[in-house]
Amino acid sequence: MRILILGGDGYLGWPTAMCFSRRGHEVWVADSLAKRHWEQELGVEPLIPISSLKERVKLWRRMTGLEMGVSIADLCDYEAVSTLIQDFQPEAIVHYGEQPSAPFSMMDQKRAVLTQVNNVTGTLNVLWALRRHAPDCHLVKLGTMGEYGTPNIDIEEGFIEIEHNGRKDVLPYPKQPGSFYHLSKVHDSHNILFACRVWKLRSTDLNQGVVYGVETEETALHPGLATSFHYDEVFGTALNRFCVQAVVGIPLTLYGKGTQQRGFLDIRDTLRCVELAVLNAPEAGEYRVFNQLTETFSLRDLAKLVQQQGKKLGLAVEIQRLKNPRVEAEDHYYNPRHDKLNALGLTPHLLSDVLIESMLARIQENAHRIRKASILPHVAWDGAISATPAHRAKSKAAHAALTSAH
Amino acid sequence: MRILILGGDGYLGWPTAMCFSRRGHEVWVADSLAKRHWEQELGVEPLIPISSLKERVKLWRRMTGLEMGVSIADLCDYEAVSTLIQDFQPEAIVHYGEQPSAPFSMMDQKRAVLTQVNNVTGTLNVLWALRRHAPDCHLVKLGTMGEYGTPNIDIEEGFIEIEHNGRKDVLPYPKQPGSFYHLSKVHDSHNILFACRVWKLRSTDLNQGVVYGVETEETALHPGLATSFHYDEVFGTALNRFCVQAVVGIPLTLYGKGTQQRGFLDIRDTLRCVELAVLNAPEAGEYRVFNQLTETFSLRDLAKLVQQQGKKLGLAVEIQRLKNPRVEAEDHYYNPRHDKLNALGLTPHLLSDVLIESMLARIQENAHRIRKASILPHVAWDGAISATPAHRAKSKAAHAALTSAH
Repeated sequence: MRILILGGDGYLGWPTAMCFSRRGHEVWVADSLAKRHWEQELGVEPLIPISSLKERVKLWRRMTGLEMGVSIADLCDYEAVSTLIQDFQPEAIVHYGEQPSAPFSMMDQKRAVLTQVNNVTGTLNVLWALRRHAPDCHLVKLGTMGEYGTPNIDIEEGFIEIEHNGRKDVLPYPKQPGSFYHLSKVHDSHNILFACRVWKLRSTDLNQGVVYGVETEETALHPGLATSFHYDEVFGTALNRFCVQAVVGIPLTLYGKGTQQRGFLDIRDTLRCVELAVLNAPEAGEYRVFNQLTETFSLRDLAKLVQQQGKKLGLAVEIQRLKNPRVEAEDHYYNPRHDKLNALGLTPHLLSDVLIESMLARIQENAHRIRKASILPHVAWDGAISATPAHRAKSKAAHAALTSAH
Repeated sequence: MRILILGGDGYLGWPTAMCFSRRGHEVWVADSLAKRHWEQELGVEPLIPISSLKERVKLWRRMTGLEMGVSIADLCDYEAVSTLIQDFQPEAIVHYGEQPSAPFSMMDQKRAVLTQVNNVTGTLNVLWALRRHAPDCHLVKLGTMGEYGTPNIDIEEGFIEIEHNGRKDVLPYPKQPGSFYHLSKVHDSHNILFACRVWKLRSTDLNQGVVYGVETEETALHPGLATSFHYDEVFGTALNRFCVQAVVGIPLTLYGKGTQQRGFLDIRDTLRCVELAVLNAPEAGEYRVFNQLTETFSLRDLAKLVQQQGKKLGLAVEIQRLKNPRVEAEDHYYNPRHDKLNALGLTPHLLSDVLIESMLARIQENAHRIRKASILPHVAWDGAISATPAHRAKSKAAHAALTSAH
């Protein structure tokens, strides 16, 4: 199958590209490299050094003999998207090509607008180009479980039957996203649903939980094929960040009580879910949503797991509560359904001691590269803490106090 | 009260500004004049000649002795928005400042993206500027009933209590918008709700029906105070367009069966609703939604009303069905609640014979200005008809055949 990976330079995009390539598909990766630019701006970098996308594609060919097309293209440039889709004629597109960070989107007006304009425009351009050049292509779009927020009822997969005043309808599940980033994904979902209805496009929206892990079958083939694993406050996610904190000897930081519950999944399951979606395309005109997670944990429980595993490796891991920089419910009901991917054949890698232990080991190899100052939160949802240089300096001082106290 | 009107040059913005000014409020109007540019691009113009915003503000002062501030400012320019709000310190903002047309947004990729980027960015900028410079100000935002689509259950005002698997929550009402324009309003609604929750801003989202009418108490004071009444396929709305078709002697065009039902209201009620919202501000942190309509009609029934009234004025009015250029349900349940504005004191002007008769008379005075070729639809949701010059020419020919046959 001809598969186009948008955002192919990213944490998930690159492993996805290798995964499909190795399974015999014809793969093309495209990326604007915008995220590398944002990393530079913020002074953060992935744990493991990542060579350029073009270099990685070359190495992939050398290692496996498999060809992979590569384009440096910005989805906000309609001509570029249009040409890419017209020329490659993909049968499936896996679309990761968006600004992926909630804290980034909450930093200031400029980055909030950038996030929404970038993500919404990119996806609109993909939809228009599909309509024109490849209307049968299946768009697999990465959304987020954060689109739903934490409602007091079960979270269904995209749609819910509502009975109201004696009548019934199946309607899009109400969304309560928690940042301008999460909002951008909600906007995308509405736009894609509309394009499927009106233009008979076909799409799967994968509302994904928080992904953890550093290694897949393909990244393990060569150090140069590693993926960009982040642990900083902006691009790092919970479990990945906790593991880095454990290795580097600073307390695991819970935002608030840490009783917030979220859905999680192993990076290897992300690849499998995307593959299952691609191999089982919806009908023309169909827009479907899969909730892509395998387990739910509270952040507190997750921190405790890391603490226990760290102990086995001789790491003295502390857990510390910070004032929650986000505006979010800490005690809440959380029961997201996630049956559809299981029904298609997903066999989850549940979070195991072994996984955490191997993550810690992998991080230890790269411990000299960790920039401690980038881990603690500086971005606050309510504006109480801001990302100005002055605040940065102040919170660096706080951080120094914290680490010396430890 | 200090009231800032965004989109103050438009069909509703200008009458709203005069209405508040005459009632003793301190009014400032701002507009980017972008819509005048889009009109030029598409070769359409309002029925009645409209002088520049600055000229109208001068005339208003001359007629009434009342001062009104005016800024030519683009909401997509954050510095401009920020300065405006910081300097004027509004207690309420009435935000009409968006690309207002569904067909415009469906014309091509460029205009779809323009619509969403323009509307979403403008509103985000207003939110960020409010947070920074006027967090107590009440944002009255114009949304649309088209955000809801036509669900098979009653449409509530913004939120709905859902009981599901034995648990309950009150959640945002599910949205099923019908164009990239309507989608942009849904995106705005989600963004505003979030800003109210996280930053404790206060806002009223007015999900408005289709507005008809050409005259308000204030526009009637002088011909130079008229508002920009549109009848073309892009910026004109149903009843207004029907009245123009009746006067000019071309059949009233129903899209499809014409059994689509919509909510409607008189332009004078728009002003009253906005006034009621402004005079009854929500609490800090509160986001509320009012459904702003007074009656529902099918488009077919509306056309018949115009036909009957035309007859009284000696106009032979025909009704003709066109292939529906939109992708929408034609036979559907439609029961939108609209109790909140009534509870605040709205006494609706229901659509009466007198109103249609006076609209027809007003249009007759300006009949020589009507451009027939701009009335029939060229923009199709599914791309079957497009706005390319070739199609334009073809449909001009069809139109000529239609009018000569009549």
